[in-house]
Amino acid sequence: METGKKPLSFLFKNINSNVKIRLKNDTEYRGVLVKCDNYMNLILDNATEYNSNELVADYGSVFIRGNNIIFISFE
Amino acid sequence: METGKKPLSFLFKNINSNVKIRLKNDTEYRGVLVKCDNYMNLILDNATEYNSNELVADYGSVFIRGNNIIFISFE
Amino acid sequence: METGKKPLSFLFKNINSNVKIRLKNDTEYRGVLVKCDNYMNLILDNATEYNSNELVADYGSVFIRGNNIIFISFE
Amino acid sequence: METGKKPLSFLFKNINSNVKIRLKNDTEYRGVLVKCDNYMNLILDNATEYNSNELVADYGSVFIRGNNIIFISFE
Amino acid sequence: METGKKPLSFLFKNINSNVKIRLKNDTEYRGVLVKCDNYMNLILDNATEYNSNELVADYGSVFIRGNNIIFISFE
Amino acid sequence: METGKKPLSFLFKNINSNVKIRLKNDTEYRGVLVKCDNYMNLILDNATEYNSNELVADYGSVFIRGNNIIFISFE
Amino acid sequence: METGKKPLSFLFKNINSNVKIRLKNDTEYRGVLVKCDNYMNLILDNATEYNSNELVADYGSVFIRGNNIIFISFE
Repeated sequence: METGKKPLSFLFKNINSNVKIRLKNDTEYRGVLVKCDNYMNLILDNATEYNSNELVADYGSVFIRGNNIIFISFE
Repeated sequence: METGKKPLSFLFKNINSNVKIRLKNDTEYRGVLVKCDNYMNLILDNATEYNSNELVADYGSVFIRGNNIIFISFE
Repeated sequence: METGKKPLSFLFKNINSNVKIRLKNDTEYRGVLVKCDNYMNLILDNATEYNSNELVADYGSVFIRGNNIIFISFE
Repeated sequence: METGKKPLSFLFKNINSNVKIRLKNDTEYRGVLVKCDNYMNLILDNATEYNSNELVADYGSVFIRGNNIIFISFE
Repeated sequence: METGKKPLSFLFKNINSNVKIRLKNDTEYRGVLVKCDNYMNLILDNATEYNSNELVADYGSVFIRGNNIIFISFE
Repeated sequence: METGKKPLSFLFKNINSNVKIRLKNDTEYRGVLVKCDNYMNLILDNATEYNSNELVADYGSVFIRGNNIIFISFE
Repeated sequence: METGKKPLSFLFKNINSNVKIRLKNDTEYRGVLVKCDNYMNLILDNATEYNSNELVADYGSVFIRGNNIIFISFE
């Protein structure tokens, strides 16, 4: 993995990848990252919601407000 | 779905669509998205309020302050 | 209802209308919206305070700091 | 009461009036509003502190940091 | 007491006075206000810490970060 | 260790080092710091998640949003 | 101690001194202040972590994010 100072550029390179998003309220969203801005606002496609690794909901597209995000992991 | 860097533009394209808004206090609002700005302040028409998927209130138009929003899902 | 991108302009058009204001601490204020700015700081006249739909206090004019507001509904 | 868009100007007009200040931690301060700025930082004279309408403390002058304020009511 | 719009200038005039500082976590600091800026960051000398009016700690100089402050009272 | 005024420059010098990140929700992430910006947004490689010093999850790369961070320690 | 308006300059003068840092989550860090910026981000050397005055951890260098800090005391 390339090293450098720009974590957000890494995020932009992962457009169209599967990601897991952990929010401050401890829920997790999984899906395809289709849009993302500098505030970490993002759109997930085929989004699913997990609570303690249990599937609790199924969405089409969701817009997640960046300031709720703790971390994003990449497969 | 088009990919890109602008999640908010996706929101603006969904003006007049039905949306579900989840807030930080865990309540959910459903209705027609009629107005929206860059802070995610928005106006819903025919707005209803749900708590754990149970209808708890019925409003005409509501103004929701963007900083309370966790996510918005689109049907 | 006119559609567009400016939720705050909708608020300004409702100056002199009856509104309900829900705050983050779950109390509700009802009254006549007489002043409002871009931060959603606002002045209510004939303001009353409700907790779980029960009237708990009666004020003349109140200044509400915008950052406490979750939503505003219009009759 | 004059209508308009500037709730803070209403605050400035009430310099030297008796006000009640409700803070986010649910305590209430009552006193004479002697200074106030755009952040709602303010100085109260003859300030008293109430908790559930019970007097708990008596101060001379207090400086209240604006970002703790929920609302201000005017007699 | 002079009236006006600048609560922070009142704070600056009280440099070298004894003050009580109440923080959001409900602890109280008492001491001599020796430095203060526009964010309400401040330095207290001969600082003591109180919890429910009980002395819990004794410091030399402390730097208090302004955004934790609820109010400052002056003797 | 060099003294000076720039804590963030120290962070940038530790790119490619092993770090421990403690978040506000008390979880800890360990891994190799590969990217970092001025907001303390960062990318960890070979990231692992600990709760009370117990390994709870294993990730490839994670993006951590800087505003959740309490501290970063260096080996 | 010199009086004035700049609490942060006092912090910068204490580079290389022993300090105690109290955070919002009530943990305390002690160590040598080696770097510090205007946001109160700082680097401690020989850092130790205390909880209710009990030593709970020992670090080499730690980077503490300024917005978690309640106060800093100087010996």
